Amino acid sequence: MNKALNIHTFIGCEARFDEANLVLFGAPFDGTTSFRPGTRFAMQAIRQDSYGLESYSPYLDMDLEEVAIFDGGDLELPLGNTVRAIEQIHEYCEEVLANDKKFLMVGGEHLVSLPSIKAAYEKYPNLHVIHIDAHTDLREDYLGESLSHASVIRRCHDFLGDGRIYQFGIRSGLKEEFEWAKEHTYMERFSIDTLKEKVSDLKDVPVYITIDLDVLDPGIFPGTGTPEPGGITYRELLHAIEEFQGLDHIVSADIVELSPSYDVSGASTAIACKTVREMLLTLLK
Amino acid sequence: MNKALNIHTFIGCEARFDEANLVLFGAPFDGTTSFRPGTRFAMQAIRQDSYGLESYSPYLDMDLEEVAIFDGGDLELPLGNTVRAIEQIHEYCEEVLANDKKFLMVGGEHLVSLPSIKAAYEKYPNLHVIHIDAHTDLREDYLGESLSHASVIRRCHDFLGDGRIYQFGIRSGLKEEFEWAKEHTYMERFSIDTLKEKVSDLKDVPVYITIDLDVLDPGIFPGTGTPEPGGITYRELLHAIEEFQGLDHIVSADIVELSPSYDVSGASTAIACKTVREMLLTLLK
Amino acid sequence: MNKALNIHTFIGCEARFDEANLVLFGAPFDGTTSFRPGTRFAMQAIRQDSYGLESYSPYLDMDLEEVAIFDGGDLELPLGNTVRAIEQIHEYCEEVLANDKKFLMVGGEHLVSLPSIKAAYEKYPNLHVIHIDAHTDLREDYLGESLSHASVIRRCHDFLGDGRIYQFGIRSGLKEEFEWAKEHTYMERFSIDTLKEKVSDLKDVPVYITIDLDVLDPGIFPGTGTPEPGGITYRELLHAIEEFQGLDHIVSADIVELSPSYDVSGASTAIACKTVREMLLTLLK
Amino acid sequence: MNKALNIHTFIGCEARFDEANLVLFGAPFDGTTSFRPGTRFAMQAIRQDSYGLESYSPYLDMDLEEVAIFDGGDLELPLGNTVRAIEQIHEYCEEVLANDKKFLMVGGEHLVSLPSIKAAYEKYPNLHVIHIDAHTDLREDYLGESLSHASVIRRCHDFLGDGRIYQFGIRSGLKEEFEWAKEHTYMERFSIDTLKEKVSDLKDVPVYITIDLDVLDPGIFPGTGTPEPGGITYRELLHAIEEFQGLDHIVSADIVELSPSYDVSGASTAIACKTVREMLLTLLK
Amino acid sequence: MNKALNIHTFIGCEARFDEANLVLFGAPFDGTTSFRPGTRFAMQAIRQDSYGLESYSPYLDMDLEEVAIFDGGDLELPLGNTVRAIEQIHEYCEEVLANDKKFLMVGGEHLVSLPSIKAAYEKYPNLHVIHIDAHTDLREDYLGESLSHASVIRRCHDFLGDGRIYQFGIRSGLKEEFEWAKEHTYMERFSIDTLKEKVSDLKDVPVYITIDLDVLDPGIFPGTGTPEPGGITYRELLHAIEEFQGLDHIVSADIVELSPSYDVSGASTAIACKTVREMLLTLLK
Amino acid sequence: MNKALNIHTFIGCEARFDEANLVLFGAPFDGTTSFRPGTRFAMQAIRQDSYGLESYSPYLDMDLEEVAIFDGGDLELPLGNTVRAIEQIHEYCEEVLANDKKFLMVGGEHLVSLPSIKAAYEKYPNLHVIHIDAHTDLREDYLGESLSHASVIRRCHDFLGDGRIYQFGIRSGLKEEFEWAKEHTYMERFSIDTLKEKVSDLKDVPVYITIDLDVLDPGIFPGTGTPEPGGITYRELLHAIEEFQGLDHIVSADIVELSPSYDVSGASTAIACKTVREMLLTLLK
Repeated sequence: MNKALNIHTFIGCEARFDEANLVLFGAPFDGTTSFRPGTRFAMQAIRQDSYGLESYSPYLDMDLEEVAIFDGGDLELPLGNTVRAIEQIHEYCEEVLANDKKFLMVGGEHLVSLPSIKAAYEKYPNLHVIHIDAHTDLREDYLGESLSHASVIRRCHDFLGDGRIYQFGIRSGLKEEFEWAKEHTYMERFSIDTLKEKVSDLKDVPVYITIDLDVLDPGIFPGTGTPEPGGITYRELLHAIEEFQGLDHIVSADIVELSPSYDVSGASTAIACKTVREMLLTLLK
Repeated sequence: MNKALNIHTFIGCEARFDEANLVLFGAPFDGTTSFRPGTRFAMQAIRQDSYGLESYSPYLDMDLEEVAIFDGGDLELPLGNTVRAIEQIHEYCEEVLANDKKFLMVGGEHLVSLPSIKAAYEKYPNLHVIHIDAHTDLREDYLGESLSHASVIRRCHDFLGDGRIYQFGIRSGLKEEFEWAKEHTYMERFSIDTLKEKVSDLKDVPVYITIDLDVLDPGIFPGTGTPEPGGITYRELLHAIEEFQGLDHIVSADIVELSPSYDVSGASTAIACKTVREMLLTLLK
Repeated sequence: MNKALNIHTFIGCEARFDEANLVLFGAPFDGTTSFRPGTRFAMQAIRQDSYGLESYSPYLDMDLEEVAIFDGGDLELPLGNTVRAIEQIHEYCEEVLANDKKFLMVGGEHLVSLPSIKAAYEKYPNLHVIHIDAHTDLREDYLGESLSHASVIRRCHDFLGDGRIYQFGIRSGLKEEFEWAKEHTYMERFSIDTLKEKVSDLKDVPVYITIDLDVLDPGIFPGTGTPEPGGITYRELLHAIEEFQGLDHIVSADIVELSPSYDVSGASTAIACKTVREMLLTLLK
Repeated sequence: MNKALNIHTFIGCEARFDEANLVLFGAPFDGTTSFRPGTRFAMQAIRQDSYGLESYSPYLDMDLEEVAIFDGGDLELPLGNTVRAIEQIHEYCEEVLANDKKFLMVGGEHLVSLPSIKAAYEKYPNLHVIHIDAHTDLREDYLGESLSHASVIRRCHDFLGDGRIYQFGIRSGLKEEFEWAKEHTYMERFSIDTLKEKVSDLKDVPVYITIDLDVLDPGIFPGTGTPEPGGITYRELLHAIEEFQGLDHIVSADIVELSPSYDVSGASTAIACKTVREMLLTLLK
Repeated sequence: MNKALNIHTFIGCEARFDEANLVLFGAPFDGTTSFRPGTRFAMQAIRQDSYGLESYSPYLDMDLEEVAIFDGGDLELPLGNTVRAIEQIHEYCEEVLANDKKFLMVGGEHLVSLPSIKAAYEKYPNLHVIHIDAHTDLREDYLGESLSHASVIRRCHDFLGDGRIYQFGIRSGLKEEFEWAKEHTYMERFSIDTLKEKVSDLKDVPVYITIDLDVLDPGIFPGTGTPEPGGITYRELLHAIEEFQGLDHIVSADIVELSPSYDVSGASTAIACKTVREMLLTLLK
Repeated sequence: MNKALNIHTFIGCEARFDEANLVLFGAPFDGTTSFRPGTRFAMQAIRQDSYGLESYSPYLDMDLEEVAIFDGGDLELPLGNTVRAIEQIHEYCEEVLANDKKFLMVGGEHLVSLPSIKAAYEKYPNLHVIHIDAHTDLREDYLGESLSHASVIRRCHDFLGDGRIYQFGIRSGLKEEFEWAKEHTYMERFSIDTLKEKVSDLKDVPVYITIDLDVLDPGIFPGTGTPEPGGITYRELLHAIEEFQGLDHIVSADIVELSPSYDVSGASTAIACKTVREMLLTLLK
């Protein structure tokens, strides 16, 4: 008889914090979501449905059972207090990095990437960011708020500066965001075909990867707050992740914007689960 | 050929502001929702599905076609900025009342009732509140925030004081909330059977009515953020509304917490629509 | 090995036409539905989910396995041609009655009851109708069409005349319909409590029963095109059906307005299935 | 920073095994479900959605935070091997009882109650069973299998014998089951109104309570495999649970047949959550 | 305070009729739908969810905010009267064209294209039609009715004659329809790869474009009445729309067959919204 | 008036057993499903929704109306008794083959293919199997059970031996399954691009085709128990089926793992319907 309290982790992530090289955790914040909220439930749904997955990846020929990952659960973030939520995420990421571990954070809306990228940048001042998304996320502000899911990458540029941000799959935004991007970031619109080439450029520098799952076509990934038709297929995203093996120094990463209740079929959650597995293994390669 | 821009109102609410005695509007705010967000879409869904209703109420023997109601649309509230959202609602209500009209506000989460009750209280200092809900909403604060859907009635008590708040249908809260209520509000737990008697006590004073639709059993009204089983039936709520005719001075009212996407059958939205019609007619009786 | 073509009937209704006393069939027409169409799929869904039911009714202490019912499938009705659809239903009912059998028809929208009641009336000129519904269905016309689900009972009155129609559970309609009813039909509004008394009055005359399932509260029966909150419970409907045993001469009956795809849980279809079983057994009592 | 592995329990059930008086666990087995499978996911869904509940019960004036309950997670039961699944459940219950603790088991289909009642009977030979359900569950066998959800109470009778089983709310079964019950069990059909009286008879004897949630009307609880219309309301079930306080010796209990994916609104899961809370507190009263 | 009645338009379409060059309107008719009805709700859903879109198209580098489009709302079409519904659509289109404006009509089922193409043909006798669809729509009649969604293009051929109809993406129909097409229309089966070439042929003639969204694979666009697997991707459709810039004289266009309630995820509606935006901008290029 | 009992077949499959060359039947077994059960309802749903299809295939230029297929309905398989269910399927397939007919079986979970392939092998000892799937299905056992959906192809290898099994589209399994496959089967991982070449190798030998529909990407086919992202498109599967015309001796085939209730949009069922039509016609080519 198992007398331990019920432990509930992503499949194959049962290592203790001390023995792990990688920390998986959820950042259930969706306070600035403008259209359909609900990403706060993403990591819970992913953890649960991860048992429909195998722990072995035939793509990377690696198995979660053979590596040491700690699932730290979900942060307890205050509702309706954006500033404090950001601070708490920042502290958590900082401490993981201070322990010489990497993290894979699961959002939540995209704003959660601001504090995690900040923490990574503080440790690695030469940080570069690969940003895969349907949306530019480059607004100066959104409805008067400078801290918004729609301005998260712009806020990262505030400290990263020009030449550090590589955007792929972008197909929605204001005209001025597309204009601004021409001078300040690398942006591939509509597809992610140039990723391979850019990965090769970034081989030696510290890289943070942020994947907004709404880069996928909503036909195949409807479980998101702001579905933007015309996206990439899941096979294209899988290939992109395989390309990441060309990077020698991936610092940490995140996966955001699954909103499970909008896809009652469970397919969107299954996609997020597999993406988590592939990214966990990629971070440990 | 109709060459007017597309006008979209609740059924039978096509009066101009000036000719109306009553203003219907939406307050699409769900920023402090702790469990399942989504009430921001309530008024849109209600407006749309109101065309499945008749404009005539056989309960009240009145017809929306025979009265003059202005549908002001939905306020444009800032996301993630609770204080400003509250201010904007307050301003709107204040102006409606200053024009000697009543309003029926449709939430949004229950916190939207704080500014509307405040505005009513400022005009009618002897204001009494009838509060129909599953939840006490009497917390001093919730996760450190004093402005929360879970503390909205407590915040109203801050200015109304003892003896002004009448709560019905309450079946969920902290132990201390139930204790606190014993001294500061009238509270009927689990049912609304004493409403008739209290309505008779409140006959002559100015009364504001706030209806949190989650007072209904989630079996019949699943479209809400925090379903609390064991609630009243819709017929019981209809009878309560009929009782309101015993009140000589209903100042204004609100209906909150419909979250349409959690009930894909549309039944919850239909319930909200009918409640809106009955309350509109009650306010004009 | 079963070498017969796949036969698919309502549970326990496997008798041949000749040996049956009762014919069950579907009338999949929803051409005049004004709000949400879809009742055309009702009988298919009922047939399929009937296998989640028992064939035995503990309410009536009768078993479908012990009686002889023929399931004639669904009529093939023309789409968008209301007049011809009505004719075909009329012919079918006429022939069943001419063979000295009863029928239980499953709609479709409520307009399908016009030809079936007509056929019953032609055989039994002294026909009385028990009409259980949320809606009056007494319009002279609807959007200019005199053949409409919203005018079906008015059309029956055209040939039945005053004093023949008994309406229960009615809670929605135009003001003029409620006025008109006062002089031409018996109508109980909002509930069905007087059914027992009226059944006793109708003991000896030929009676046709038409049940619009939207008489049920949409909280418990959301699978319908025009959900009207404030309805009766399913236990109340079951008790009404038990009362029908007080009628000595039930001619035939119908059950209409299930729209299965609006209730993905299947509960509405389960309710329709059980109502079909209870009515089949009642017709054979 | 929380460095513990992610612990996931029902709200307020964080005690260690040793310090607890009561063990909550899931038995995720649905191998003999005849209509719609899926109860294997019940306890996971309940654990997750329990955070929409309060830990305090105003009905019993008790709080989960003030008692010591261990959530042992879900048993890992073999798929498609009914006999072994039953053995594993039996062993678990046996060990909990041997440690002088009670348990509340959450199914799974109703067959999981066979081994748990057996274990309780072995410790308390004078065991009586209160069985709340829509279905008789008294078949000698179902499709040739004697171990079936449809025969679970009959199998309990094999060892308990006559006069020990009290059935309430029963409204579906074979004619022979209803006949058989007349001689071997106490059965209230259609409602649970006599529960209070029977509770008073059972005051002093050891009692096991098994609640099949399909006793509720599927209109309010559609999330179940075999929805049977005409059931009780949730308030009636809550009152029944309050009556259980009249029992001096409740041995253990179970709650079965939630199938969460059939009710995408979450209302059925919310009902199950609240029932779990009320039963946990009842077992500790 | 906004004292205007609630205006509800597609995002960025707030121009008055007089100042607009383009009229957007809904034709909510689904009376001849043979499988799953529901397209009558398409334009309402599109208008509502258009607020999840940006007004700027990075594909065309144009912005709805910079052009003048009038949203005329939905026509009020009679239910169950196909002939009159067609007449009303015809009149509306005629008047728009008579005012030297273009229109983009949103269905409704595909039959609504018959009167709109007719109106365009009457103004431009040399009209050519680009027809993108999964279905041939070339039946002489369907279940005896010559006015049917399944015969709409055949009816257009009645007045257009040979050599005027260009069909793409067709993958379903009767054998005789495919045979007939060989002599009377240009048809690309299964894909839309030859669109570019044909656009070049049609550069100088007046062209009407009718897009049946079921040309998309139902895996990505399930929200339609007659899902036909094996369709094109949304990126392919976007590319087709980009090709339309090669046409010098697009007269008007329509987008039909979204049935929003069959896709509760909202992805199908999002696809329709984006298609509306792209087509609006294309018509104004 | 049609006086036959209600016959319900897949569209165009109304031949009697004796006149048919091909038998279509359902094997509604899902007893060993490890994640989400529900495939037992597949054939019922396919039969019903087949009426949204045309009987003519433009891909193969053949029509179901022109061939003779018998729809034998669904086998009545015992629940929870895996061994007996397998035996019954085996007997049925054996008898069909003994009558010199082919069959197309629709699952159910993949384990149903074991007895059908066994029966085909007994008649054609040189049998080769084309296996299209997301999963390896090559486990020696699953949770201790050797008869499992996860080991079905391994069990077939037990009698077929090396060199007989050709697997396509495989993207999930244990590391040891992928290792094992290297020596015992032909396996294309992730895609089905080599199918054409292998079909050419298998031109002259007897071939059985088993299609697990979860080979499709869950974005387009979410209605399955174990969704595995990264799958093929439906067009790719259609092309594969067209390739099968290169096989001179297709013995029989099956299509498994549709679980209709997980895709409430109906798109997954529509995909299964079309696959059934194409395979029926392929088997008769």
